[in-house]
Amino acid sequence: MHTPETDQIPAVLIVGSMAFDDLELPSTSATDVVGGSATYAALAASLFAPARVVAIVGRDFPESTFAELRGRGVDMQGVIRADGRTFRWSGRYASDLSSRTTLDTQLNVFAHFRPKLPAAYQDSQIVLLGNIHPELQLEVLDQVRAPRIVAADTMNYWIDGERPALLRVLARIDTLIINDEELRQLAGQHNIRLAARAVQELGPQRLIVKRGEHGALLFDETGVFVVPAFPLDTEIDPTGAGDTFAGALLGHLATRLTNDAPDLRLSLLTAAAVASFCVQGVGTTRLTALDRSQLAERISELRSLIDVRD
Amino acid sequence: MHTPETDQIPAVLIVGSMAFDDLELPSTSATDVVGGSATYAALAASLFAPARVVAIVGRDFPESTFAELRGRGVDMQGVIRADGRTFRWSGRYASDLSSRTTLDTQLNVFAHFRPKLPAAYQDSQIVLLGNIHPELQLEVLDQVRAPRIVAADTMNYWIDGERPALLRVLARIDTLIINDEELRQLAGQHNIRLAARAVQELGPQRLIVKRGEHGALLFDETGVFVVPAFPLDTEIDPTGAGDTFAGALLGHLATRLTNDAPDLRLSLLTAAAVASFCVQGVGTTRLTALDRSQLAERISELRSLIDVRD
Repeated sequence: MHTPETDQIPAVLIVGSMAFDDLELPSTSATDVVGGSATYAALAASLFAPARVVAIVGRDFPESTFAELRGRGVDMQGVIRADGRTFRWSGRYASDLSSRTTLDTQLNVFAHFRPKLPAAYQDSQIVLLGNIHPELQLEVLDQVRAPRIVAADTMNYWIDGERPALLRVLARIDTLIINDEELRQLAGQHNIRLAARAVQELGPQRLIVKRGEHGALLFDETGVFVVPAFPLDTEIDPTGAGDTFAGALLGHLATRLTNDAPDLRLSLLTAAAVASFCVQGVGTTRLTALDRSQLAERISELRSLIDVRD
Repeated sequence: MHTPETDQIPAVLIVGSMAFDDLELPSTSATDVVGGSATYAALAASLFAPARVVAIVGRDFPESTFAELRGRGVDMQGVIRADGRTFRWSGRYASDLSSRTTLDTQLNVFAHFRPKLPAAYQDSQIVLLGNIHPELQLEVLDQVRAPRIVAADTMNYWIDGERPALLRVLARIDTLIINDEELRQLAGQHNIRLAARAVQELGPQRLIVKRGEHGALLFDETGVFVVPAFPLDTEIDPTGAGDTFAGALLGHLATRLTNDAPDLRLSLLTAAAVASFCVQGVGTTRLTALDRSQLAERISELRSLIDVRD
């Protein structure tokens, strides 16, 4: 969606997974759905800014997805195509989509992933560390010369099993994107406000707490912001919605770096709008079909959700 | 908190319970706590407007509570003092306050409650039907000559067991206050937007969906509004917070009736602010200690939660 004049916009460096997902959804089932955190994040970021991806895929990953991403201004030279099969996740969603069960995870080529940044990526100013092993997140950071915004996602698996490495990640990032249960687990504190304060003391000054159908909370230097979630009347597939949110957020922030007062709140609303489309189709289908006017309308609807006049 | 010049503000008629609560809270336990939906709602409404209560208590109910309510401009002539003991509820809250278990309910004098409006109440323009048997809600409505705003609360117990009577209530009210699970149960529909639409078709054009720590949603003729909940760092006792929210909402709406464009959204923010104080003390303690400047500050904090500038 960005145009030639966006060449002045700094690129968003994204590290994460590219995957096949097998999905058992309330309304349908689908196999071999192209997904992965880097795929969703790159598609979303590319609505606003150039993106650069660091990931690994197997021989079975479709060339057409590479072509589609490149067509959207995504630099794919950091994606390794290795001998073997692509990472695969299978999951079953509850009938109300509020929870999901992992049925199977096959790491495949991802088991040997060591992120190696092409030279052209090393000047990246904006970095999104997708939800991968914190040691790999650190390896990526080590290869970026002077990042201005570093956001990371993480999950219960790393909070439980790789806390020392995760703490080193937290000390080096400015923005943590995490869901509410994971925040509580990380902080060892149920109260969301106290938990946020405890995690901010570990490093990230900006904390974005995802709350599923309830939207998200931002804790930052200006206080707290409630990011509303649009109450959708069709919800098909939440897979990748969090990665879409993160990618759109960083992409939109990239466009604001040229401003004197980048408004994180507006970027969050925009990211929530993009993520809401992700849920409305299986895999990336709705996201790739999104056009500028639909997005503008959804952002306007989200703003109206929190509009108060005296 | 209202002053002599508020005498022009129409009174809010409140029907509900007055009770003793025995509370097992994460931080403390307390017995014989004065509570009940009408008590909380009247205290909250009286911050903004005169209130009138229809309820029943036993001989054991403290005269000091009557005196306190009267001192706040609450008309108590609709409260019957009957032979016997006051309604009593005991409950235990989960350690994170997100759920509670009823340990015991003793209806006592409430078992024979037939609401009878004093003649002076029959001109009430604003009516809050607290969460009691829908047949009793209807009896109250039958005694009000020309109400302008009628809001009702209800619960799973009536949705399951008294649906025909509840449907007759819904056909006669303009505002339904309900929590998200109850809305889904009432509509037989999980999707919150579709459920809201289905319930609006049963009568109430304004639907306020309470979502606990996630705040509330308003569905009305202007669309959807996200009522934020202030993320508190001390949460003591959620008992009565929903009734406080409803009472404050109707009280604040009463003050807006004199305006050309009453802003329901602003009233909802105000109600959320008042309810947030309720949670910060056992029973009604924090609510009765609330002063005007604290409330103004909390409302301002809530507004900042949803403030977006371009």
